[in-house]
Amino acid sequence: MITVTIIGAGNVAFHLCKAIYSCNELQLQQIYNRSEFTAEFDVFESHKTHNIKDLMEAAIYIISVSDNSVATVANSLPFENKLVVHTTGSVGMTDLPSKNRRGVFYPLQTFSKSKNVDFSKIPLCLEAENEADLEFLKEIASKLSESMYEIDSDQRKAIHLAAVYVNNFTNHLFYVADTLCKDKKIPFEILKPLVEETVDKIKHLNPLSSQTGPAKRKDSKTIETHLAQLTDYPEYKDIYKVLTNSILKTYE
Amino acid sequence: MITVTIIGAGNVAFHLCKAIYSCNELQLQQIYNRSEFTAEFDVFESHKTHNIKDLMEAAIYIISVSDNSVATVANSLPFENKLVVHTTGSVGMTDLPSKNRRGVFYPLQTFSKSKNVDFSKIPLCLEAENEADLEFLKEIASKLSESMYEIDSDQRKAIHLAAVYVNNFTNHLFYVADTLCKDKKIPFEILKPLVEETVDKIKHLNPLSSQTGPAKRKDSKTIETHLAQLTDYPEYKDIYKVLTNSILKTYE
Repeated sequence: MITVTIIGAGNVAFHLCKAIYSCNELQLQQIYNRSEFTAEFDVFESHKTHNIKDLMEAAIYIISVSDNSVATVANSLPFENKLVVHTTGSVGMTDLPSKNRRGVFYPLQTFSKSKNVDFSKIPLCLEAENEADLEFLKEIASKLSESMYEIDSDQRKAIHLAAVYVNNFTNHLFYVADTLCKDKKIPFEILKPLVEETVDKIKHLNPLSSQTGPAKRKDSKTIETHLAQLTDYPEYKDIYKVLTNSILKTYE
Repeated sequence: MITVTIIGAGNVAFHLCKAIYSCNELQLQQIYNRSEFTAEFDVFESHKTHNIKDLMEAAIYIISVSDNSVATVANSLPFENKLVVHTTGSVGMTDLPSKNRRGVFYPLQTFSKSKNVDFSKIPLCLEAENEADLEFLKEIASKLSESMYEIDSDQRKAIHLAAVYVNNFTNHLFYVADTLCKDKKIPFEILKPLVEETVDKIKHLNPLSSQTGPAKRKDSKTIETHLAQLTDYPEYKDIYKVLTNSILKTYE
């Protein structure tokens, strides 16, 4: 049994703990967090510790804390030459201190504690300083997910940025649409089949071929009409303008 | 049997013809198009006509042509006092000439001829000048879809605009992410589970509660890092800035 210790108690740490806990071939050794655990972690009661000196031997230590704390937490670990990885898209592998063997185990997904995810479908982006550790990360990853990729720190930074576009920004566009509908007493519900089809399309076509709409067909009359409708929404008008401009440039 | 004649031969006309054709309670009377039909329409061979004078009696005439041609085509119809509706989000009902009874039958979805859609899930937005015609539109709609809404022209304009955000702009964000990945030799595939989860989340939470990311948590360090990565992508940088700004304003 491969022993895994999780350091941190955020959303990623929680879903990672759950996935390891329910995997027959991995053993959740400990979960360390300096401060209190949220109630969701009660199920892992016997594994919890607040004292960094209580950390036991484990085959791998996975640091899953906020981006800006990764290096500090890694530095505070009271041991050397162990395999220590982090789970963060925006932090380089070599931002970890070199006193331990370094690597990255980045699950590319958005997590909320209250929302279940199928961990077996999550792409795991792996990186390690030495070949043996990389093989070991692959072994662990293969027990948790069907999807894994070897991704270096430079690539991972690009993925993290791309994820902001497909998740954070896309969700904000949904919010904009929700607002525009609500202001005319239209339920957001009405747009959901369109949202689903938008995503379904890119399973069959690439995003370049899937594009439709007034900007794609250079329909300046409709664009003008839409901009006029946005007079009372200055930020949404800015969003409309830059996205329209970018689509126009893409297909010019 | 309710007889329905379709005027036009675009993507919406095609999927509407297919839905009517396969419905036992509606009869596809004719499909009129001034110019040639694409090959996909071959299956409706016996119903096709290019001569507007050949239009027969039908219970309803559905004009499904490009937004800017709706009024012209409606004007050219060689009859009066029939029920004539269009399928366009951005055109008002009263943009149709008053010589016929006017209405709107707007299927809120994105259509490509090569991509099948489940018509029964498409929200049909209905409007008519008189109550009897509205009831008749509801009757037809109920035979084609599980989802229908009474939507006036002002609301429909807002829906059309909102649809640009959730479909056209969202798809363009996917394209931006695709480009950022490709430039680092990362397959776009890796982002698809995240895209799916982004959409799955708004089934359970509203978009305001689903928001995550650096702008939501006011993480200016990560935002600066991302902007620095976008130096070679001026349009994508503009998109990043306005969307980040709009998210910051939403949660301030």
